Amino acid sequence: MDRKILLHEKDIPKKWYNLAADLPTPMLPPLGPDGNPVNPEMLTPVFPMNLIEQEVSPERWIDIPEEILDILYRWRPGPLRRAVYLERYLDTPAKIYYKDESTSPPGSHKPNTAVPQAWYNKQFGIERLTTETGAGQWGSALAFACKLVGLECKVFMVRISFDQKPFRKLMMQTWGANCIASPSTETNAGRAILEKMPDTPGSLGIAISEAIEQAVTDPAGKTRYSLGSVLNHVMLHQTIIGQEAKAQLKSIGEKMPDVVIGCAGGGSNFAGLAFPFTADKINGADIEIIPVEPTACPTLTRAPFAYDFGDTACTTPLLPMYSLGHDFVPPPIHAGGLRYHGMAPLVCQCVVEGLHTPRAIDQIECYEAAITWAQTEGFICAPETSHAVAATIQEAKKAKEEGKEKVILFNYSGHGLMDLTGYDAYLSGKLDRYSLPDEMLEKTEECLKKHPQAEARKSGKW
Amino acid sequence: MDRKILLHEKDIPKKWYNLAADLPTPMLPPLGPDGNPVNPEMLTPVFPMNLIEQEVSPERWIDIPEEILDILYRWRPGPLRRAVYLERYLDTPAKIYYKDESTSPPGSHKPNTAVPQAWYNKQFGIERLTTETGAGQWGSALAFACKLVGLECKVFMVRISFDQKPFRKLMMQTWGANCIASPSTETNAGRAILEKMPDTPGSLGIAISEAIEQAVTDPAGKTRYSLGSVLNHVMLHQTIIGQEAKAQLKSIGEKMPDVVIGCAGGGSNFAGLAFPFTADKINGADIEIIPVEPTACPTLTRAPFAYDFGDTACTTPLLPMYSLGHDFVPPPIHAGGLRYHGMAPLVCQCVVEGLHTPRAIDQIECYEAAITWAQTEGFICAPETSHAVAATIQEAKKAKEEGKEKVILFNYSGHGLMDLTGYDAYLSGKLDRYSLPDEMLEKTEECLKKHPQAEARKSGKW
Repeated sequence: MDRKILLHEKDIPKKWYNLAADLPTPMLPPLGPDGNPVNPEMLTPVFPMNLIEQEVSPERWIDIPEEILDILYRWRPGPLRRAVYLERYLDTPAKIYYKDESTSPPGSHKPNTAVPQAWYNKQFGIERLTTETGAGQWGSALAFACKLVGLECKVFMVRISFDQKPFRKLMMQTWGANCIASPSTETNAGRAILEKMPDTPGSLGIAISEAIEQAVTDPAGKTRYSLGSVLNHVMLHQTIIGQEAKAQLKSIGEKMPDVVIGCAGGGSNFAGLAFPFTADKINGADIEIIPVEPTACPTLTRAPFAYDFGDTACTTPLLPMYSLGHDFVPPPIHAGGLRYHGMAPLVCQCVVEGLHTPRAIDQIECYEAAITWAQTEGFICAPETSHAVAATIQEAKKAKEEGKEKVILFNYSGHGLMDLTGYDAYLSGKLDRYSLPDEMLEKTEECLKKHPQAEARKSGKW
Repeated sequence: MDRKILLHEKDIPKKWYNLAADLPTPMLPPLGPDGNPVNPEMLTPVFPMNLIEQEVSPERWIDIPEEILDILYRWRPGPLRRAVYLERYLDTPAKIYYKDESTSPPGSHKPNTAVPQAWYNKQFGIERLTTETGAGQWGSALAFACKLVGLECKVFMVRISFDQKPFRKLMMQTWGANCIASPSTETNAGRAILEKMPDTPGSLGIAISEAIEQAVTDPAGKTRYSLGSVLNHVMLHQTIIGQEAKAQLKSIGEKMPDVVIGCAGGGSNFAGLAFPFTADKINGADIEIIPVEPTACPTLTRAPFAYDFGDTACTTPLLPMYSLGHDFVPPPIHAGGLRYHGMAPLVCQCVVEGLHTPRAIDQIECYEAAITWAQTEGFICAPETSHAVAATIQEAKKAKEEGKEKVILFNYSGHGLMDLTGYDAYLSGKLDRYSLPDEMLEKTEECLKKHPQAEARKSGKW
């Protein structure tokens, strides 16, 4: 039995898979400020047209350019691994496989989309990308991608992370990016905030506003903005994960997984693994597909499905998604990547259709799972990834109770070597259980009611 | 062409290779305080007898127990990779291969010996291991190994690192180890220092003394000490690296390397890759084998070959090695793992025999190489590893000048994700070139003269 199942370079997926082509119900369109569907042209100040075309593409398969594969070969195809040590520890009849996305240079799945985004921008004649980053995982992935493709990269990093987590910033600088604390004095949005609150720790919402402002106000028109999750083309780029996993399971004669699991913040690592298997489910395969989120930010499990803005500052189109409200401020849990108020519309649509069955898990159970993982499998996972590990342990125990030899597959979205302060807080007893109180959901309703499109789906308007 | 050359689990090396069996001249023995060769029995308070037997073994091959392989399978066999992106950047006819030791859970080659050391101690009935650590790479590897084997682990970490580099300490705690700042109040050695210097930043020498004291004074006799480099059995355990590399090159029909490179502090990662190829060189193969050290700590390139203590406190036997003197305090360079005053006696013997040709490189050139590596290959290497990268670039440029399609193989001993402060210092211009001044070498002579055995080899006494 091989614990590591490998694909040769020549067997890397040559196309991305677009789930939108196979969904039972067509996707609802994003809406503009006037309540009408957004025209692709309206997005051109922010994104290059070749990526906008992917965003709205109805095609099932989209070719991956050879030049992009040449960059991805640095770490792809990635290993599919079998967690035999965890299996032994749990004494479960289940077989646990995981797709190891921690092997990329920045240590997560994020470069799977950072690289094509940088490449398509370069093809379009763009010279510089801007983005925002919280803890720094996305910023470091885009810095890496821009360096390899040959673009400038500017990252607005939330000030409190910039000050408290210098290592991610140093990664970005090592890859030649310009990483500055947000709010900054370089944008109108930043200056306005600093005037009112000179000591603000910043927020992701402010950083997004700064990054978009710098992209759309470049007089030469050579700057664009890049987003690391949520959008359709981001999900598309990540499907290389699930396609590899499917080929790897097949290569060892393993059956289709019974359960597919991924943690879900904006949805991209989960979608990357899950969408190729979702296609099989649509075609009748019996697979349980589980996006896992924190009980502190229960978008898919407790929020309403509505039209809402993707950002706090209401600058994006309205997206059809489960949302806790664009002004939702989640409590400070350590899995920073899972604190988003919304979720990728494609993932939300799958939940609506009953294709995905979301689950929320408390951070304490997730850190317990992470420690079990570190002390059996040996590796230290990212706090986000620990949510997938915790759900996997739940499913492996269930398989034991049922006496079934299930095949469980999950996405190991990243390592935790840059995020050990969360482990420290857990090990020293400073973390508490936390479920979002119902009162907070009342605020969600209020926030969403401000936009009549919120109820669009229920009214059958679209 | 595959950029990643893999071995299947079933093809992992089943034996360790002991170079001592093949050296043209037999190794000089370690000496006790009386100047006579050390009897293995004398080492039993510090190490278990099964490891002492490996330390003095004349056998060429030593079986790796299946239980140890079962632990190593978590990351071994490790990938051999081809640095095609660096080759393109340098426009060199050389083919550059590297053995990637950064894929272990602690991120370096260190677990290759931490695991067997923990396992043999457990077999011997030991319940607890003590060790010292500077920056934390060795301490985290031993913490990892002890958890998987089922031993307690106590790590004395130099106080200044304990305070300034909390992440490595958190790794150790995640793997269940007890990591405390040294000097501590738990040992006589620690208390004595604290009484004199309550604010001392600590040193590796003090930490070693504390770790050994706790091992030898356990009234139950269930504690031993563990060392991460220098000793023969450590080199032995690391030879799995070079054996895998040889099998991987053969699997793709590649010729024997023309040049083999590794950075050398205590010598273990270098030896791990180099010794299996050194055997071929002894048998007539034309291979240049290069240990690379910093110009700030030029043990192999400028120090005398002599008998010297392995530690500052003079508690170890006298070892036959190149040494800058056991009281040598190297300047603060960022590659903490390369600041050792001595070098593994087996490596030293190879240098004496002309089998290895050492080279010293300045830290500025090494960081330049590390940045080139990060911006071409994409990965961020450890500051120690950057010395091997710098020598590889030198050799690849030389191959271009000579117009020769050389095969260069180096050991990528670890990633630099926990060591980004060194990159920061370099990128912000705070690092200087530094070569050890000749006056420092005069102090070396004085230090070594205190022990008449220093000149033993020259006199032909042994």
